[in-house]
Amino acid sequence: MAKVAIMGYGTVGSGVYDIIKMNSAKLSESAGEALELKYILDIRDFDDHPEKHLFTKDVNDIINDDEISVVAEVMGGLHPAYEFTKQLLMSGKSVVTSNKELVATYGSELLAIAEEKNVNYMFEASVGGGIPVIRPLNRCLGANNVKRIAGILNGTTNYILYQMIKNKKSFETALADAQANGYAERNPAADVEGHDACRKIAILSSLASGKELDYNKISTEGITNISLEDVNYADSLDSVIKLIGYAEFLDNGKIYAHVAPMMLQKSNMLAGINDVFNGVLITGDCVGDVMFYGPGAGKLPTASAVVADMIDSAIHRSRRAIIGWKKTDEDIAASTDDKKFRYFVRTTSGGVSDIFGNVTAVESLVEGENAFITEALTASEMAQKSQKLGNIISSIRVFD
Amino acid sequence: MAKVAIMGYGTVGSGVYDIIKMNSAKLSESAGEALELKYILDIRDFDDHPEKHLFTKDVNDIINDDEISVVAEVMGGLHPAYEFTKQLLMSGKSVVTSNKELVATYGSELLAIAEEKNVNYMFEASVGGGIPVIRPLNRCLGANNVKRIAGILNGTTNYILYQMIKNKKSFETALADAQANGYAERNPAADVEGHDACRKIAILSSLASGKELDYNKISTEGITNISLEDVNYADSLDSVIKLIGYAEFLDNGKIYAHVAPMMLQKSNMLAGINDVFNGVLITGDCVGDVMFYGPGAGKLPTASAVVADMIDSAIHRSRRAIIGWKKTDEDIAASTDDKKFRYFVRTTSGGVSDIFGNVTAVESLVEGENAFITEALTASEMAQKSQKLGNIISSIRVFD
Repeated sequence: MAKVAIMGYGTVGSGVYDIIKMNSAKLSESAGEALELKYILDIRDFDDHPEKHLFTKDVNDIINDDEISVVAEVMGGLHPAYEFTKQLLMSGKSVVTSNKELVATYGSELLAIAEEKNVNYMFEASVGGGIPVIRPLNRCLGANNVKRIAGILNGTTNYILYQMIKNKKSFETALADAQANGYAERNPAADVEGHDACRKIAILSSLASGKELDYNKISTEGITNISLEDVNYADSLDSVIKLIGYAEFLDNGKIYAHVAPMMLQKSNMLAGINDVFNGVLITGDCVGDVMFYGPGAGKLPTASAVVADMIDSAIHRSRRAIIGWKKTDEDIAASTDDKKFRYFVRTTSGGVSDIFGNVTAVESLVEGENAFITEALTASEMAQKSQKLGNIISSIRVFD
Repeated sequence: MAKVAIMGYGTVGSGVYDIIKMNSAKLSESAGEALELKYILDIRDFDDHPEKHLFTKDVNDIINDDEISVVAEVMGGLHPAYEFTKQLLMSGKSVVTSNKELVATYGSELLAIAEEKNVNYMFEASVGGGIPVIRPLNRCLGANNVKRIAGILNGTTNYILYQMIKNKKSFETALADAQANGYAERNPAADVEGHDACRKIAILSSLASGKELDYNKISTEGITNISLEDVNYADSLDSVIKLIGYAEFLDNGKIYAHVAPMMLQKSNMLAGINDVFNGVLITGDCVGDVMFYGPGAGKLPTASAVVADMIDSAIHRSRRAIIGWKKTDEDIAASTDDKKFRYFVRTTSGGVSDIFGNVTAVESLVEGENAFITEALTASEMAQKSQKLGNIISSIRVFD
């Protein structure tokens, strides 16, 4: 019997509770022992809850209880989640989390404490919601040097872009629609400006390389500038526009990473990921391309990943699982000029080939503008040429 | 340092060798210790091999060497792979395999021996080649009761169907093409008649339920009867035809399973899996739909999965990983009448609605024939009605 606790009884926390109750037989089978829920930490009152005796407002009840071996941190936010997690790990308890911000910000430190205390700090639910991706990347692809990770990592922006693509809605209408459906927050900046996807590609990159990639060093661009015309141009090129978290592991040992809208051929598996779904395409030097697809958010899907980590932590109580990365002094972030992309460009200027040289012309869909695809360029080259040409309406990286 | 051996130096075996040599640093990092290859078993001579001293023709060299802890069985075929695996497990060594026939046929017995001897018998490479699917199903979805598994599990048939869909080739031409490209054997029966996919869905079903599903009890139909007209009809319905290994976990505790061509809407993620790629769609009661996609065969992809199991076996030397299923006296195979499907039907008979009742008419693409989609029917109902109607040209289950 493993005794466990939940910290935070919001959407994901109540999902974890539901799964522990609903699927207790399956959990016992998977873990080889029952998981018994002993505490739920939340500052709010839940007097009508059928198991109100489980609730506490004092984290010390959990920290000081030697019976507790695994704790699910599903509070979200940096504080006090960071302090609580640290204290729990220090007191020899494993912690599992869905908190991507915490993992991306304090992951190296928390992983080091877990290693020192011989317990687990697991975070399957922090990327891709219910999709198994952290453990497959770490374990099942353990024979591979990872060459590239490219993912649709944010369901809100994928929903908005899908509405633009499928129902020809404008960005503003699609966003309002997402908000009305509960897929986007009233303040949607973290999603639509790419910050959420940035934390997630940082976690995946750190895990694949074994070294911390600081998310502050990842060039991040959202979808707020994508227009219906861009989407239509993409369609005319048998492509779609998706917000991609992208990381390439370069031969010089550094990681090139960005979050940006990219134009993908419809035959690309990532192009078929619609609505609020997420998908992660991983390229290994032995396996080639593999993709993991599923619900990137939601109460039970995310809780499913949290509980899978609780099971794994219970199994690995006596011997911790090797998962995570270390902080190094070395700066592993590549320069944005270490990687070239082709760009789809719209402009009202003429004389394109004088500045961009060989380009592939694209049939114009808007009177008075030129559209084309460049040869592969670094970010600096693209910036210089764009400035020189002037009157750039859009420039979007092509996913090759 | 974990000392390991390879049994069988064919395509996959030489891929395992290549990965152990090529990616030794990555392997050490993933396993927490180096993997040292001590033997390669093969009955053939490899006198020109740079490490010819590793080769042996006598399996007892491996069985009797106490230093060996993990062995990759990549010989294929039932015998002597079965006898060798059994002896190795009995002597306390972990065995990992890509041999789906062996796992589907003797899995329960070999898993029980592994459990008794406290070693691992792992088989990630037996389904989906390089795609991580066995471990994610077992571990990452451990909080879920699995409701359904549906997969494109055979690359050869998927290639043939894709050539029919994309390039409008006939079955015969597409098969000849697959043979010319090395994707199909000279005797293609195991692939095109669905036997290979049958072994694989049996393995996935057994793993998900924890109980052995006998592959002999799985209704298996290949793609030899699929014509270019069927493919064109599917296209007219915004669908494609794929060979699907299908398993549904019924509320009565039994498993309904089949291998058969099915008609899928193009918006279904499985519909986008082209060429020789494989994909497995798993529905859990908490997570909903997740899909795993990638190369279902090939030297390095398959070897990548074998080596991942070697790493995991090395990590779990002192404490075995919980993975597998048990043989039970209970018959867990559902009757083919425990599950209803809609069917796409072509016939030259009239009077369809007199026999099939409410049907959805499909515009005829061939003069003199009627095409329609039935309501959901059991296999017996479908057989009876088809016999009564007569002159059935095709009947293909619809994937709902």
